[in-house]
Amino acid sequence: MIGREGDIVIQDVHPMIDGGKYSIKRIVGDVLKVDAEVFTTGEKAVCVDLLVKPPSSEVWLRTPMKQVCEDRYVGNYTLLELGSTLYTLEAWVDEYQTWSKGFERWLSSGEDISVDLEDGLNILRGYMRLADAEDSAIISNAIKKIRDSSVDSIYKAVTAKDLLDATRRCSRKHGSVRFTPDLEVMVDRSKAGFSAWYEMFPRSQTRSPERSGTFKDVEARLEDIARMGFDVVYFPPIHPTGRTNRRGKNNSSNPSPTDPGSPWAIGSTEGGHKSIHPELGSLDDFKHLLEKAQSLGLEIALDLAFQCSPDHPYVRDHPEWFYHRSDGSIRYAENPPKRYYDVYPLNFDNPNWPELWEELKSIVEFWIEAGVRIFRVDNPHTKPFSFWKWLIQGIKKEHPDVIFLAEAFTKPNVMYHLAKIGFTQSYTYFTWKNYNWEIEQYFRELSSQPIAEFFRPNLFTNTPDILPFVLQYGGRPAFELRLILAATLSPVYGIYSGYELCENKGVPGKEEYADSEKYELKPRDWDAPGNIKPLITRINKIRRENPALQNFRNIRFCEVNNPNLVAYIRWSDDYSNVILVVVNVNPFEEHYAKVRTSLGEFGVNTSEYVVEDLLTGVRYTWHSEENFVKLNPKTQCAHIFRVK
Amino acid sequence: MIGREGDIVIQDVHPMIDGGKYSIKRIVGDVLKVDAEVFTTGEKAVCVDLLVKPPSSEVWLRTPMKQVCEDRYVGNYTLLELGSTLYTLEAWVDEYQTWSKGFERWLSSGEDISVDLEDGLNILRGYMRLADAEDSAIISNAIKKIRDSSVDSIYKAVTAKDLLDATRRCSRKHGSVRFTPDLEVMVDRSKAGFSAWYEMFPRSQTRSPERSGTFKDVEARLEDIARMGFDVVYFPPIHPTGRTNRRGKNNSSNPSPTDPGSPWAIGSTEGGHKSIHPELGSLDDFKHLLEKAQSLGLEIALDLAFQCSPDHPYVRDHPEWFYHRSDGSIRYAENPPKRYYDVYPLNFDNPNWPELWEELKSIVEFWIEAGVRIFRVDNPHTKPFSFWKWLIQGIKKEHPDVIFLAEAFTKPNVMYHLAKIGFTQSYTYFTWKNYNWEIEQYFRELSSQPIAEFFRPNLFTNTPDILPFVLQYGGRPAFELRLILAATLSPVYGIYSGYELCENKGVPGKEEYADSEKYELKPRDWDAPGNIKPLITRINKIRRENPALQNFRNIRFCEVNNPNLVAYIRWSDDYSNVILVVVNVNPFEEHYAKVRTSLGEFGVNTSEYVVEDLLTGVRYTWHSEENFVKLNPKTQCAHIFRVK
Repeated sequence: MIGREGDIVIQDVHPMIDGGKYSIKRIVGDVLKVDAEVFTTGEKAVCVDLLVKPPSSEVWLRTPMKQVCEDRYVGNYTLLELGSTLYTLEAWVDEYQTWSKGFERWLSSGEDISVDLEDGLNILRGYMRLADAEDSAIISNAIKKIRDSSVDSIYKAVTAKDLLDATRRCSRKHGSVRFTPDLEVMVDRSKAGFSAWYEMFPRSQTRSPERSGTFKDVEARLEDIARMGFDVVYFPPIHPTGRTNRRGKNNSSNPSPTDPGSPWAIGSTEGGHKSIHPELGSLDDFKHLLEKAQSLGLEIALDLAFQCSPDHPYVRDHPEWFYHRSDGSIRYAENPPKRYYDVYPLNFDNPNWPELWEELKSIVEFWIEAGVRIFRVDNPHTKPFSFWKWLIQGIKKEHPDVIFLAEAFTKPNVMYHLAKIGFTQSYTYFTWKNYNWEIEQYFRELSSQPIAEFFRPNLFTNTPDILPFVLQYGGRPAFELRLILAATLSPVYGIYSGYELCENKGVPGKEEYADSEKYELKPRDWDAPGNIKPLITRINKIRRENPALQNFRNIRFCEVNNPNLVAYIRWSDDYSNVILVVVNVNPFEEHYAKVRTSLGEFGVNTSEYVVEDLLTGVRYTWHSEENFVKLNPKTQCAHIFRVK
Repeated sequence: MIGREGDIVIQDVHPMIDGGKYSIKRIVGDVLKVDAEVFTTGEKAVCVDLLVKPPSSEVWLRTPMKQVCEDRYVGNYTLLELGSTLYTLEAWVDEYQTWSKGFERWLSSGEDISVDLEDGLNILRGYMRLADAEDSAIISNAIKKIRDSSVDSIYKAVTAKDLLDATRRCSRKHGSVRFTPDLEVMVDRSKAGFSAWYEMFPRSQTRSPERSGTFKDVEARLEDIARMGFDVVYFPPIHPTGRTNRRGKNNSSNPSPTDPGSPWAIGSTEGGHKSIHPELGSLDDFKHLLEKAQSLGLEIALDLAFQCSPDHPYVRDHPEWFYHRSDGSIRYAENPPKRYYDVYPLNFDNPNWPELWEELKSIVEFWIEAGVRIFRVDNPHTKPFSFWKWLIQGIKKEHPDVIFLAEAFTKPNVMYHLAKIGFTQSYTYFTWKNYNWEIEQYFRELSSQPIAEFFRPNLFTNTPDILPFVLQYGGRPAFELRLILAATLSPVYGIYSGYELCENKGVPGKEEYADSEKYELKPRDWDAPGNIKPLITRINKIRRENPALQNFRNIRFCEVNNPNLVAYIRWSDDYSNVILVVVNVNPFEEHYAKVRTSLGEFGVNTSEYVVEDLLTGVRYTWHSEENFVKLNPKTQCAHIFRVK
């Protein structure tokens, strides 16, 4: 009756999100560390196993958990398979071990132990009835040994390790308690947790604003991107662009006949989401591009923008998938008092929704078939949660290597919930966090429990929609410092092309690009003077060489006595790699500060230690946890110290 | 499709314990305040109802919840019935209200609104198909009014309150999301949350140590107890006491023939747990005593000690209910290297356990039948959790007015878990918390979430087993200060008789009574000089007159610049009654300190306010949140200020 429901309590299980309603996320190769409180009434010896069921396993694998302090047990399991792995805990009472603890105290009190000893042997005999041959032999031998022991040696015989291991196994068969529900960890490939993104418009890879770039042109550009150290190249939609209500330069409603329109106005007589804009090339050209990218260590990410231009074939074939107005027209995308006349939103709640959902899923499958494994999802927060959960779960079941990045700039609850229901990575508010206090506050939040278990921040310095004021007015130092922040605050970050050239012409008073690339071709000289490509190359190299910069959840901010500086420590799991980043977040002025590193907690001998600035190669010998740092944004806006 | 599972998220529901696995506790008349985050994708108008199902209701009652800030909704329900009340939340989207928000923005932009308006009216027409007659009429009238409105007045017509109330009701019929699981609040009677306990041995109510006191003697004593202001009188076991291995004075193993033995060694040839010790009287005498108590505003609490003396009838009739040893004997209660030869523990896991459990439940039912409604449960932590859950749920289902107090001095997890699974009140570590920092730390913990939702501390100053050192050595001032702490730190507290006489003779080096009443009759002069009955009477009167002292969860500690003083504020829900308690916890020396009250937060004008010491009647006018307090334990160890 030991296993009677509720007699053993398993509570406060970590990691776990909302009582197990949602999965935690890990990277293949990660050690899943689980801990929980387990206890029962009386003075019973409790045993706890961590149970894990990887995708390929038919059975639950067991790992004994260790008691680390009263009621707290910890177990580890190394995740080696992609996809959904289940885990939970099982606990039971070992009556023999319970007895042996009392027996020790009777022994040391000098009382007659003969009856007590026989009580213990009776428990062992009971276990033998449930034991397999091996355990039966161990127990049988142990009984003999115990019987032959003198009073002086008997406790050693009673608590022999092989005997206790056997009673642990046998006692479970008397009944155990299992934590419910089963918990899930979604195991992703390493790029889900560590990657550097480069966003570019394929059509702009041209020398003339009159002629669209092609996939072939993109191929020619990839080497430059690979040399900078990026590993994901993300394209805005590559599909045919609508003609009806096409937007002209600077989002004008009067386009010239040659204006290419927004690539997010997807669909024309030339096809929809499964077609390629004819000016970019063919599907074969695209597949060739994927091969070329792969040969350079690059991976192509596509945009999933589930919306349609009025010319999209869906509008003709499935008008019921859209919103209809009282005058019979289809509703444009709108955000009162604005309407977007080149785009129709899809009605995910239309009566024919299962067909629509299946069609949208088939789009993802089409591009997976073509060789794509990373998708950046446009505005997921305007579509139902249940759709994303269904789509991502369905796709990842067949293709656990697929990565979905949520581009949801909306309220925190919705951003977090999209991550909870399956998005692999998420856009963030990083782009608007400029001051040291708000950077600290935000990244403390992102690295806190349980957010860090499900939300992987992908820090973009800029996007075609966002040119923050700090970049518009801060000049090259701003581009440098924002790059360093993005690349070292999270293992996943990205830039939108033009950043390396410090392009910073904005619409006055708005955080938007003037002459936005969304509405025109933008040929560029990628080696124009003043570019920061050497810095980008160096930063990406530093990231690759330092495991401390390749994990989430490992950030600690340092006390700094000047609000213009922000400082933080990142470390590898085994503390063999410790990085201290100090950034002057004010692009206009030199600033200095005392930085309290608390490096002693990372095993550093803080009375004398060496830090090497990985940006310059210069080494400093420090003699305290509190050190003086001066940074002039004109010459060097940041240190990235490796602590020796 | 609005109600599709997961499209609306309801999360972070308060109050809730461990995802709803356990009930919260409230007192009848309490307002249950529930809050949660509710959100969905897009810009939809969300409606949220609090659903409540009291025991007598067949249906769920609805209360609209109010949005208090982004995504956060709050609802209240006044609990009027004893027993298990269920509650949960339901949320849905009101398409019309969603539309009306966009409509307002189209209106103010000056665009042509005719099609938009018709879109909105179409939504209303859709609602009418689901509406009852009343709502149908409201909507139909509203449509007319809206059609007749000018542009200037149309928004007012669109958002008329009766219309929005109707669309709120109708839109729910399109589909809603309900939080799972249903949550439970156990509603207890007021004594569960506010009571003063007095523990006494009925057999000691005698003038001679040679003759056992009787229930008649107890009756004569009750007036004295009622005058002191107590309302619960708790008796150790009143059943026949075993003869075999009976303990003598001071727990001696050689009793004299007249020694009465420990009342916790229950059972003899004269009967077991459903019998009364013949020397105390008959069952009728007991019932007469209950009546007498009731007439004085007192309630009798009995002890539930589920263990047996070797002479208990169960041992003969149900030997299988006990633990059997390898030599054929029954196992005594033990805590190696100690054995308690006058007591056999019951084996709750014996193969015949369902019969044992039913018998134990029938004991509780027997005393309920006799008129008892409060039980103090002896050592519940040595019996299985599942037994208590089953017992308490079963009893409270039939008798929701029954109160169970858990006497579990064990590790915190087990103490808390017993409260989670149903115990109404719990013993605490209060008795050993002497210093101001440990009092603060402990009561911060007890009043924190979620502990405060399920754990009701019953603070005993002393028990027959515990005479803390502070009482042994601190003399009368210690008795005074510990009484004031117990009575004002929690609405439920108790003393064990003799406390009022400042009895403090301990076993040297132990926190135990010398000549313990557990093993001998203790006649006393209840009006002996030096008694603190006037103080007890005054304290209990102050408690009854001040609602601030009648609730849990409302305690805040004040900053004090002397570690010998502890200060805290308690308040009534409406802040009309605010009490500031300051205690010198050092019984040996006068101490003074500055106390920072932060009373401004309670609406007090802190530039000039009056506090009245309810112990002395003296009033002080204070002009700051920081005030000087001096307390001499010889004359007055504490202030209990009512803030005017």
